[in-house]
Amino acid sequence: MPKPLHIGLIGSKFMGRTHSNAYLNVAKFFDLPRHPVMHTLAARNLEETQAFAQRWGWQHATDNWKEMVQNPDIDLVDIGTPNHVHRDQALAALDAGKHVACEKPLANTLDAAREMVQAAKKAKQSKTFVWFNYRRCPALALAHQLVKEGRLGRIYHVRGFYLQDWAGPDTPMLWRFQGAKAGSGSLGDLCAHSIDAARFVTGDEFSVVHGSVLKTFIKERTVLDGSAGGEISGRGARAKKSKKARSTVDDAVVFTAEMKSGALATFEATRLSTGDKNGNKLEIHGEHGAVKFDFERMTELEWYDNTLPEKLQGWSTINVSNGGAGHPYAEAWWPTAHAIGYEHGFINQAADMVKAIAGKKPLVPLPDFADAYITQRVLEAVTQSAKNRSSVKLSEIK
Amino acid sequence: MPKPLHIGLIGSKFMGRTHSNAYLNVAKFFDLPRHPVMHTLAARNLEETQAFAQRWGWQHATDNWKEMVQNPDIDLVDIGTPNHVHRDQALAALDAGKHVACEKPLANTLDAAREMVQAAKKAKQSKTFVWFNYRRCPALALAHQLVKEGRLGRIYHVRGFYLQDWAGPDTPMLWRFQGAKAGSGSLGDLCAHSIDAARFVTGDEFSVVHGSVLKTFIKERTVLDGSAGGEISGRGARAKKSKKARSTVDDAVVFTAEMKSGALATFEATRLSTGDKNGNKLEIHGEHGAVKFDFERMTELEWYDNTLPEKLQGWSTINVSNGGAGHPYAEAWWPTAHAIGYEHGFINQAADMVKAIAGKKPLVPLPDFADAYITQRVLEAVTQSAKNRSSVKLSEIK
Amino acid sequence: MPKPLHIGLIGSKFMGRTHSNAYLNVAKFFDLPRHPVMHTLAARNLEETQAFAQRWGWQHATDNWKEMVQNPDIDLVDIGTPNHVHRDQALAALDAGKHVACEKPLANTLDAAREMVQAAKKAKQSKTFVWFNYRRCPALALAHQLVKEGRLGRIYHVRGFYLQDWAGPDTPMLWRFQGAKAGSGSLGDLCAHSIDAARFVTGDEFSVVHGSVLKTFIKERTVLDGSAGGEISGRGARAKKSKKARSTVDDAVVFTAEMKSGALATFEATRLSTGDKNGNKLEIHGEHGAVKFDFERMTELEWYDNTLPEKLQGWSTINVSNGGAGHPYAEAWWPTAHAIGYEHGFINQAADMVKAIAGKKPLVPLPDFADAYITQRVLEAVTQSAKNRSSVKLSEIK
Amino acid sequence: MPKPLHIGLIGSKFMGRTHSNAYLNVAKFFDLPRHPVMHTLAARNLEETQAFAQRWGWQHATDNWKEMVQNPDIDLVDIGTPNHVHRDQALAALDAGKHVACEKPLANTLDAAREMVQAAKKAKQSKTFVWFNYRRCPALALAHQLVKEGRLGRIYHVRGFYLQDWAGPDTPMLWRFQGAKAGSGSLGDLCAHSIDAARFVTGDEFSVVHGSVLKTFIKERTVLDGSAGGEISGRGARAKKSKKARSTVDDAVVFTAEMKSGALATFEATRLSTGDKNGNKLEIHGEHGAVKFDFERMTELEWYDNTLPEKLQGWSTINVSNGGAGHPYAEAWWPTAHAIGYEHGFINQAADMVKAIAGKKPLVPLPDFADAYITQRVLEAVTQSAKNRSSVKLSEIK
Repeated sequence: MPKPLHIGLIGSKFMGRTHSNAYLNVAKFFDLPRHPVMHTLAARNLEETQAFAQRWGWQHATDNWKEMVQNPDIDLVDIGTPNHVHRDQALAALDAGKHVACEKPLANTLDAAREMVQAAKKAKQSKTFVWFNYRRCPALALAHQLVKEGRLGRIYHVRGFYLQDWAGPDTPMLWRFQGAKAGSGSLGDLCAHSIDAARFVTGDEFSVVHGSVLKTFIKERTVLDGSAGGEISGRGARAKKSKKARSTVDDAVVFTAEMKSGALATFEATRLSTGDKNGNKLEIHGEHGAVKFDFERMTELEWYDNTLPEKLQGWSTINVSNGGAGHPYAEAWWPTAHAIGYEHGFINQAADMVKAIAGKKPLVPLPDFADAYITQRVLEAVTQSAKNRSSVKLSEIK
Repeated sequence: MPKPLHIGLIGSKFMGRTHSNAYLNVAKFFDLPRHPVMHTLAARNLEETQAFAQRWGWQHATDNWKEMVQNPDIDLVDIGTPNHVHRDQALAALDAGKHVACEKPLANTLDAAREMVQAAKKAKQSKTFVWFNYRRCPALALAHQLVKEGRLGRIYHVRGFYLQDWAGPDTPMLWRFQGAKAGSGSLGDLCAHSIDAARFVTGDEFSVVHGSVLKTFIKERTVLDGSAGGEISGRGARAKKSKKARSTVDDAVVFTAEMKSGALATFEATRLSTGDKNGNKLEIHGEHGAVKFDFERMTELEWYDNTLPEKLQGWSTINVSNGGAGHPYAEAWWPTAHAIGYEHGFINQAADMVKAIAGKKPLVPLPDFADAYITQRVLEAVTQSAKNRSSVKLSEIK
Repeated sequence: MPKPLHIGLIGSKFMGRTHSNAYLNVAKFFDLPRHPVMHTLAARNLEETQAFAQRWGWQHATDNWKEMVQNPDIDLVDIGTPNHVHRDQALAALDAGKHVACEKPLANTLDAAREMVQAAKKAKQSKTFVWFNYRRCPALALAHQLVKEGRLGRIYHVRGFYLQDWAGPDTPMLWRFQGAKAGSGSLGDLCAHSIDAARFVTGDEFSVVHGSVLKTFIKERTVLDGSAGGEISGRGARAKKSKKARSTVDDAVVFTAEMKSGALATFEATRLSTGDKNGNKLEIHGEHGAVKFDFERMTELEWYDNTLPEKLQGWSTINVSNGGAGHPYAEAWWPTAHAIGYEHGFINQAADMVKAIAGKKPLVPLPDFADAYITQRVLEAVTQSAKNRSSVKLSEIK
Repeated sequence: MPKPLHIGLIGSKFMGRTHSNAYLNVAKFFDLPRHPVMHTLAARNLEETQAFAQRWGWQHATDNWKEMVQNPDIDLVDIGTPNHVHRDQALAALDAGKHVACEKPLANTLDAAREMVQAAKKAKQSKTFVWFNYRRCPALALAHQLVKEGRLGRIYHVRGFYLQDWAGPDTPMLWRFQGAKAGSGSLGDLCAHSIDAARFVTGDEFSVVHGSVLKTFIKERTVLDGSAGGEISGRGARAKKSKKARSTVDDAVVFTAEMKSGALATFEATRLSTGDKNGNKLEIHGEHGAVKFDFERMTELEWYDNTLPEKLQGWSTINVSNGGAGHPYAEAWWPTAHAIGYEHGFINQAADMVKAIAGKKPLVPLPDFADAYITQRVLEAVTQSAKNRSSVKLSEIK
């Protein structure tokens, strides 16, 4: 049994669950240089936190995250909380000398994100990570590898969509619709993933953002008086029908962009794309090849090889699950085409984080705070472009 | 303008229309060694025949096909009539020294088909053709080429389905449900196409048929007192609801088979596959590659290249419409991915028939009477296997 | 036989062929109030024009379109020429009292387009038409009907892509890359279709255009010294490899937009979307339903009914070919799922133009010059937004 | 914390892993009436068994399954071993008064299976289960529900395919190719799943089997001298190339069948369907609706509602992951379209087994020994039909 790696997790909602599941399963499937130990769970309501901890196998539970991050037994602090508290928790953990993993986006404001990057730089002994989990969806990881191997050549086009439809007029007021808590709506929640994925797969960076529109289609929503219902959508929640409150975030965002290489990009993220449930899509077209990804068919990567004899060219659906063929992360899991799912991106990331802490190289690049800050700057450029009705160069966002 | 080729067509229903359309358009798109002339249309009702002839540009109309086939001006007699009259019309035309094209299946009985083959053999100056039009659907023609080029290697599996759903309990009694007129139901109408397609694409022949079941799900249907409604389904027909008659054909047929090469095959044809409208499907798996075709997406061939690096293998959707790349028949038509449709298989066949009559080689093999007789023997084996509840070797069907 | 409608066509290239085919076939499939007669074909090279006319059945051929439009026998002048000559030809034909059909986009400049609209207004006895042929692709026509029936409700999102890939670095210099002849590249050639389709299907109009980028990825191309090769791509052309010339049009365009209803839209058109051959795509999401269309599977409309029981909701693939069910234009053609193709959009439009000239209502709205001018204004807004790096309101484009 | 349920598992290969994973995770996601405890793992090699047990969290490890099944602390014995030892292990466990879960197929011979059913009948206090895990794939469970709700009406057609391609000529000799160990090849390994799935979804039973062919395409395979490589395919195994041995199982099987209701069925299972990786497919067509399932897109069920207005009918792709909408098992997992995978079928079954032991009803029917024996009888009928080249009635198989 390798040396333990003691983990302290903050948060017990949706992300608390995905992270707990990752730590529970990671060492069953991966041979790791450190053995992850589920040491302490911290969340707001002590009773609920204890119940959650018991269910998932956390050894300790607390409602005091500040105390937890000081615990000398803990090696890695994992932040699975809403965006507006990332900064305080990360700074405290870094200050205490911990490795820090943080949910995406890095923060709710560019200033907070910048502080986090600076703190990470100073904390030389600490590794930082950001949970852009889709990088470890095997199909996106393969897309990254194909670009890196030069199989796409010069890139012409990037399309990044994140299309959901749970926020119709009947969906009640949730924290996700409150700007003060969420920072933004579809932009930070969904489009942040697309921006990171575009950067990850192309290996390219944004140069300029054009024509952003941030739209709130449903201006008022019914206020809940009880439980929040479903993890994302609040479905099933009990609501006082008479009371309404203003939604202060974007339901949808669109923009165009240019990459440093000259590639032309379009982005859209929305919670009102009726019929699309979790359409995290990325399409990249290069001179020699192209890829298309849609998380709704997450086991597949569409690949077009423009160098094959033209008579045989077509969009090829690769079932990215063949460990023997070298598909990313597939060796750890089941035989070919015995699908893995959403949660496995988190487990794969947990494996790579443990390896990185032990000084090993992750299979594909892991985003740290500095990397996630670049995505945060793109989010800021999108916001400014929408406000000013003009183009915004990334070089102007510090 | 090349030497004319005068055509006499018998039949003015569904197939009369597809054949007329083929002759009308073929010389617009193909450069042909003979110029097809729409000389005479023969059908039963003179008035209707004249109207049809005028609409489509036939120079003459008659209700006497026997006279027409004797007309010395006519070079090619095309038979677009129900199966039970193929024999008489073909024999007369061959006797008159004409080239003969005949709708599929060759005949309604094996005996009739055998007579036609023998007559064709004797008529040495005549070319014969059978309208297995799907051979000239570009995607199936490409599949044929891929097998011939050795790209599939040893073939393990063949699957031939022809799935339609228009014959539910509300569909009235049509000639297609009357054994005396139709010969058979789904077997001759649909499965004949699958059997021919399997032979065409694999270049292999059937060795033995097993486990046939011919099924009549809807035993009685409402008798029509008026027009027959839609070309296939009789939808919209006016029916006396009180009168019923027995359906004497198969609504569906299934069987398994072995090919001479040892390949294992399964076949199904049905008019009751709810949701499938024209699912003429063929799937062939070989050691080095595999193809899948579905006429409902007729412009596409699914191709799996088992010789590519395993990491990049996947089902590739070839849009079979790129003339510059050498896709079959595509040069004659529109730019890549400007789709052609059902009727174009007939136009492509008309082009190849004209070329064959002028002594040129068709792009892919054209079935003559002798070739279609092999398919007829398979149909017979299927019928016998169903009757005897046992396996039937093709060598036993003469 | 109804009263004839004599047609004079200008142009014998790609569009000359699609229009000729439309007039050849339209009366075979549709019962029309006027009988279209292929009277005269006008094009530049007399010899080639005569050969083309003979092949397709035009009664007369000329290299003098000005004379032709004065011919009192001709009822309808059809303009199938490059964009920069539309204005002169249309004005002359209207002046001569003819009905006028014109290829899209209406003109190469907004000024020219405006003159054409004004001339059309004055010519009260003339009907005008613009060949936005995709409106009569049955799946898009059905999408229009679904929106009109209220099945989508309030519209949130519009996505209009037109993705092709034939213009890689090896494609030689063609007239399509020359701004003086083509007006624009992907914008006028492809995106014009998307803009028209978005307007047609939603019934909505553009309010403001944001963030346009017009991109020329391949700045220089090899000059041809011989024939132009393939109709679109120039593939197969013989080129002097040493000589290069600058491409003066956009290879690709992207922009975002808002519609008058508040719907948010993104558009992209490109000739460099590797792997996409003719990806004319439109996606529209409303409160109660959504549709997705891709011309590469032109027989299908994806439909999402948000009012069904949630357990059974899914994207439904409608094979838009069932005449009995009321699918647009299907009654004229073959049985269900016996596919029609690209050319049939033109035939369907020819049918509706003949009906409109005879005073009958087309099945779905036919664009006249005034309607096409609205699309032209959107094209202008896109161009200005790209130039100024800012948002452009449609109300500012006169 | 509810009362514990102590589990003893036999087997530590592929199925040992899937079952261990199920017990590890089940109580994290489901609220269960008994708390599953991973008590003892039994397998052949003690050292490997101890390592496996430690990794997965089994409290004890042993190489003596006979002892283990006598352990009074254990409540449930789970048999995850090859088919030829199921009988002995199940009989011993039942004799010891345990609940018994057994991998599929029930046994390697009909006689062994019959003994197991008889023993289960006698052991009145014991519950038995068979791991037909695909019943708990949400899409198949939904298909079962749709049929049960009457949404398909009278069933016409059933198609059951299980298509894999890992057993090409380069795949070495594995236990799966040895009849003595495996009982059969594709028939018991793959087709057993299809037969069970057809019975499960239709609620119907087989009446007669026709035309079976059991085929061994690759007659000899290279013998391994070392490790067995990949779990299924032995890929990566080191082999002495010089030594060959005969494969004594079927690489593929096909047959047709009739169900008691009169529905017509075709089945195919193969390890040589090049390009198909785990194509466990089921298609069922009824008078009022139809479903299609393919495990390679396991989150989706294709559904055709023949009762909708015909104009809007199409194959609808239901993403079966919406807990709020009542999709089977979805409430336990992630938000809509955050996919689950292969392993979750086992976890879902573990949940239902625990519930069943506590006297609660499983969400969809759980197969016990008696139920799995019916599938075993169909396997026997297929084998006899292949041997005798004739039809075999199920009523003749006791």
